[in-house]
Amino acid sequence: MSISKNQFKLITSLSQKKYRQKHKLFIAEGIKVVQEILNSSFELETLFCTDDFSSDVSEEKIVRVSEADLKKISNLKTPNKALGIFKIPENKRDVNKGLTVALDAINDPGNLGTIIRLCDWFGVSELICSTDTVDCYNQKVVQASMGSLTRVSIRYVDLFKYLEETPKPTFIADMDGENVYKTSLPEQGILIMGNEANGVSDEIKNLITHKISIPRFGETQETESLNVATATAILLSEFKRSY
Amino acid sequence: MSISKNQFKLITSLSQKKYRQKHKLFIAEGIKVVQEILNSSFELETLFCTDDFSSDVSEEKIVRVSEADLKKISNLKTPNKALGIFKIPENKRDVNKGLTVALDAINDPGNLGTIIRLCDWFGVSELICSTDTVDCYNQKVVQASMGSLTRVSIRYVDLFKYLEETPKPTFIADMDGENVYKTSLPEQGILIMGNEANGVSDEIKNLITHKISIPRFGETQETESLNVATATAILLSEFKRSY
Repeated sequence: MSISKNQFKLITSLSQKKYRQKHKLFIAEGIKVVQEILNSSFELETLFCTDDFSSDVSEEKIVRVSEADLKKISNLKTPNKALGIFKIPENKRDVNKGLTVALDAINDPGNLGTIIRLCDWFGVSELICSTDTVDCYNQKVVQASMGSLTRVSIRYVDLFKYLEETPKPTFIADMDGENVYKTSLPEQGILIMGNEANGVSDEIKNLITHKISIPRFGETQETESLNVATATAILLSEFKRSY
Repeated sequence: MSISKNQFKLITSLSQKKYRQKHKLFIAEGIKVVQEILNSSFELETLFCTDDFSSDVSEEKIVRVSEADLKKISNLKTPNKALGIFKIPENKRDVNKGLTVALDAINDPGNLGTIIRLCDWFGVSELICSTDTVDCYNQKVVQASMGSLTRVSIRYVDLFKYLEETPKPTFIADMDGENVYKTSLPEQGILIMGNEANGVSDEIKNLITHKISIPRFGETQETESLNVATATAILLSEFKRSY
């Protein structure tokens, strides 16, 4: 069997958000990521794979392809045996307990993927994204999240409105904030992380109840800031270490 | 003035490690990174910049270029006013106090850049790299480290030999290790972080005195691992939070 013209066109179109939203489909690649998504609650549309990729997917959903054909549809430098088209699940319900992470205009797909992995690791119940945050079904996000995408509840919302309405304590990282190592952090709350270049927008800063800071230990005090993903790692670790 | 053929050839050659080592030169780009390195103890060889880039560099070291010429020598998608050729400083001396980070075969330039920033932030006195770790003067590392490169002492060594000879306690992250949140960590020690795919090599694992783990909080316990840079962030935070 080989890839039909229509399949090729569909796969190409799914690199754009508007077509992902229209078709409610997204792409994942490589043995590891595809296998993790196959083992999750996500639903497979079609699996393109080489003969040596084994899975328990029913044959009618499989298109066996040559290495050369896989290369044609792949976005990876080194295509790795499988490319799956999966269905984007319905927007999940509001999860109203535990720690929530909210992202304000995160642009970099690698950062979002890493933050999704962190949310999975630290058992964050929900990840809220502002509508101008990069799409979590962007292929680079899918690849960077390494399957964690299937285990974290992610919603895109009007972040200002969401924060205006929440009764939970809200936290941002701010150099003028309280030393996070000396702050008692609640089990329930919302940690808001901001855009790579501009941080959290002023509009949203005005809604925040708590500012916390990660102290700088370097002698020169010149390091400008931590990358948003590493700052998220440190703060989630602080929220969770006491529970 | 414009870029000479020899300058063009030199700049192109510096994308390869062997030429960086031969000429003892490396490249940094963009207003922010170039400015940070200019303000450091690192020595400038030549600065290529557009007319609107202001600095106190003496004119004989400056080559004014057009946007179009800058584009020709740049490795960035969006060249940003300046490209500097800087001298690689002499290998720094052994810093024998505080916390040391050692890297075993880190491959990804972005990860190394992020870890250099973390070392700067947390005041790590020295970063030791195995000889098969990506070169810290690789341009992607330089860009990702955001100037922290000039403030962290970095040495490439035979890591096995280095660890065999050190009297300090040595730590690796290992899922079977002691919960890092419940471990009392020393002010002096060496934290070893391993390769993205394979972790710390078995040879080196045998030399280690302490294994520590970052507990996983997710319900499904399926998240395979944290990215090496985010794990480093969490562990450095734990080492430093009590001092």
